[in-house]
Amino acid sequence: MPVRSWWGWGRVDRALDDGQLRALGEQVGLLLPLDGAVTPVPDVPPLPPPRIRPPASLASLVTDDDRDRAGHAYGKAYRDVVRALAGRVDHPPDLVARPDTDAAVAALLDWAGDTGTAVVPYGGGSSVVGGVEYRGTGPWLSLDLGRLAGVSEVDPVNHAARVGAGTFGPAVEAGLRPHDLTLRHFPQSFEFSTVGGWVATRAGGHFATGPTHIDDLVQALRVVTPIGVNETLRVPASGAGPAPDRLFLGSEGILGVITAAWLRVRRRPRFTAAAAIRFEHDADGRAAARAIVQSGLQPANCRLLDPLEAAIQAGVTDGGARLLLGFESADVPVDPLLARAVDISRAHGGTGETTGGGTGGAWREAFLRAPYVRDALVRLGVMVETVETACAWDRFDDLRDAVVDAAGPRGSTVVTYRLTHVYPDGPAPYFTILAPAPRGAEVDRWDEVKRAVNDAIAAHGGTVTHHHAVGRDHRRWYDTERPEPFHAALRAAKAALDPRGVLNPGVLIG
Amino acid sequence: MPVRSWWGWGRVDRALDDGQLRALGEQVGLLLPLDGAVTPVPDVPPLPPPRIRPPASLASLVTDDDRDRAGHAYGKAYRDVVRALAGRVDHPPDLVARPDTDAAVAALLDWAGDTGTAVVPYGGGSSVVGGVEYRGTGPWLSLDLGRLAGVSEVDPVNHAARVGAGTFGPAVEAGLRPHDLTLRHFPQSFEFSTVGGWVATRAGGHFATGPTHIDDLVQALRVVTPIGVNETLRVPASGAGPAPDRLFLGSEGILGVITAAWLRVRRRPRFTAAAAIRFEHDADGRAAARAIVQSGLQPANCRLLDPLEAAIQAGVTDGGARLLLGFESADVPVDPLLARAVDISRAHGGTGETTGGGTGGAWREAFLRAPYVRDALVRLGVMVETVETACAWDRFDDLRDAVVDAAGPRGSTVVTYRLTHVYPDGPAPYFTILAPAPRGAEVDRWDEVKRAVNDAIAAHGGTVTHHHAVGRDHRRWYDTERPEPFHAALRAAKAALDPRGVLNPGVLIG
Repeated sequence: MPVRSWWGWGRVDRALDDGQLRALGEQVGLLLPLDGAVTPVPDVPPLPPPRIRPPASLASLVTDDDRDRAGHAYGKAYRDVVRALAGRVDHPPDLVARPDTDAAVAALLDWAGDTGTAVVPYGGGSSVVGGVEYRGTGPWLSLDLGRLAGVSEVDPVNHAARVGAGTFGPAVEAGLRPHDLTLRHFPQSFEFSTVGGWVATRAGGHFATGPTHIDDLVQALRVVTPIGVNETLRVPASGAGPAPDRLFLGSEGILGVITAAWLRVRRRPRFTAAAAIRFEHDADGRAAARAIVQSGLQPANCRLLDPLEAAIQAGVTDGGARLLLGFESADVPVDPLLARAVDISRAHGGTGETTGGGTGGAWREAFLRAPYVRDALVRLGVMVETVETACAWDRFDDLRDAVVDAAGPRGSTVVTYRLTHVYPDGPAPYFTILAPAPRGAEVDRWDEVKRAVNDAIAAHGGTVTHHHAVGRDHRRWYDTERPEPFHAALRAAKAALDPRGVLNPGVLIG
Repeated sequence: MPVRSWWGWGRVDRALDDGQLRALGEQVGLLLPLDGAVTPVPDVPPLPPPRIRPPASLASLVTDDDRDRAGHAYGKAYRDVVRALAGRVDHPPDLVARPDTDAAVAALLDWAGDTGTAVVPYGGGSSVVGGVEYRGTGPWLSLDLGRLAGVSEVDPVNHAARVGAGTFGPAVEAGLRPHDLTLRHFPQSFEFSTVGGWVATRAGGHFATGPTHIDDLVQALRVVTPIGVNETLRVPASGAGPAPDRLFLGSEGILGVITAAWLRVRRRPRFTAAAAIRFEHDADGRAAARAIVQSGLQPANCRLLDPLEAAIQAGVTDGGARLLLGFESADVPVDPLLARAVDISRAHGGTGETTGGGTGGAWREAFLRAPYVRDALVRLGVMVETVETACAWDRFDDLRDAVVDAAGPRGSTVVTYRLTHVYPDGPAPYFTILAPAPRGAEVDRWDEVKRAVNDAIAAHGGTVTHHHAVGRDHRRWYDTERPEPFHAALRAAKAALDPRGVLNPGVLIG
């Protein structure tokens, strides 16, 4: 078993080595003034002893191991990594539990209710919004779903599969591949995030159009709430009242613990076609992306990289933006669809079509590697923040300008953007912000930037999150975006399902 | 303005005339034993006087006209029509209100709360599940949204339009057509149902695949609840908590009054292609439909008619089933897609492709005409019930057999089915049941059949409704299908939003 980093992204053996770190520092030094120091990888600091002990009946499910507790204390936001690098573990869980049955989840919730222990459901721990870090003062339990994992049933007749909540992305695909099926849900965190986490946070896959949100891929859910198990009927569609699963999709662990899901799967693509189109001006690339998605062509990939993003993420240094296009089908050749999308792109000023894996492949590699690079940048003293939203097409220009202004002084701040998803009614822009971090005051600086940038997004009609979720870090803006009557309804639903308030306090409401 | 029927479907001038009625009676007499009597069209019976009066400030919004009250007393189920034909108006609203602003809606809700008056939101009144008939004993108000109508804004840049809740289907399309846009949502009730009704009941359009449910076409909603206005942010997508609109989609008027919606629209199709494929055995047609939808081809129409349905609804009398296929695009020719779907059909035993409007056109005419025919059949003494559900592909055979058995004795009962929608994970079957009705005991007989058929559906893994909604008539099965914790959450949300319990009591919960 590869060792997971307790303080940063992913596997310890995949972090950038010293040589890669130096090379990265030299590259980034061309863009930003760096101080040349490299923060060493931290040891697990001593933690305060746990304040609670489980009853004997639950003891075998629970650990108080310090490395395990430290590894469950934070998500993977810049804010989390920079604190861990400084040897700070602000809010370690008193215990980590790994239930192996739904009954064990229920028993843990009962015990937590009896003892006033907060419970934070934990999937892959990849939250970048403070979703898995309890910030209250009382005792708390990190409820790791890792033992409720695996593809337990595949139904090839009805194109569906039952998957445990703790199943990581690669294991989902490994379970489906022998049946020539795929979930086709690939968030950037794919390797280190779980089905339960995807459902709880309404994850977005990285396909640009069509059913890319996990919301649309859920056929039925099993959720253990403090008042009982909520299991929905497995049907292809229903109009019976408000959709029950939609209440739990996005509930971020405050209403119940998702333990399993029936997911809609599809045949693996046999036909694919891809191109990368150059645009001298990224505005033309946006116009092309809008025309393509509004044409109804439904590309599997339609992702715009601004010139700097194209340079940093895909090694393209000709100063142009890139539109990455991809089509796929399990049944029919898709070259005519790609040709049509390329025609539309050309009509908007696109040039230099590259077919196949060129820029797109380079970008995909960089995409999956990005969180490791982020950790290295943090060690080099760079503040790295990624902010994503969705807005109407005609709000984008002002929104982007406001984000750039809010991110920091131009000379010492780099802001790039890509459109990760495009919809007929608007794009989902994803901004990356790089700036030198004031050593020792990184968290304060991040809080400042975060506040300014999110204020800018809200002021220009963007949602507080397209796929990162709300957690604790986005609460201020979520509280404004979410209509007040819905807030009252959600609070009431929470009180009904979790009457003792043990589940993920501080997230979404309360 | 054409006159709407107070007791039956649609426009008075479109009902079957005496000659058509006789011809229909002769046709149906070949299948079922009829008594030859024809129930006359009823006059509005005398109604009890209203038990409530509005305050002066609301008087101009309210009427106590008997024809208006009778016309708002029922939906359009068989159960409703047969009662009206017998001169029974069991639960007439005391008043009908037609607010012209959101503030007027709020004022009416306040007044209702103060006076203990139940309020039933009313769009087109096409409910076939008792959704608009209050069955309590106290005073009640039918809240007709007809004055909050119209396409008030079209946003061609972002492919969206703002539409008042009281807007009927044809007016939606008329408002969009000048912009070369369409909502592409065509429930069978299209002409006599409204946007607000579609949202409140999670209506299904009659396109077979893709975004046909109104759920997916809603960009944002405006809902007047008794505790305030719930207006959601207009963005193409968001992952911020449970989707607020999804709580109101399917809420059937118990949580608030939907007054306007931003809807996602699309360019009108320029390319279409259609075919009707004959299958000697309807099971082969189902296998073909499954293969087509699981191929990812996304036909706009993929509708299977069993042999009797094909005969009755499309005039096809060769004893075969028919698969109606249609493709469309605003941007690219779709003939290759149709050709591929026809190939798949042939591989499953399909023959006799007809291109263009043949069977499909005949069927479409009959489809829109069906509710008028239903009313005529009721006058001829036929019980007509339509029951729809959705289930897994491999549950269909047993479910269909159980429905046929439950519907009544074979010799005197006709059961046909069609698949109105097909999904990768299962079909949505729609059954039509015809049987002689015991004169004077029609409602009792209907209740018996309804209970037996819905029990059969529930026992074989079908949902209580794919698109007819729950209302009051489906409560028994909804209460079983809906998980208990979700019930608790919905009850709590209702109590928070409608603390005095005025909104559509008896529907969904309570």
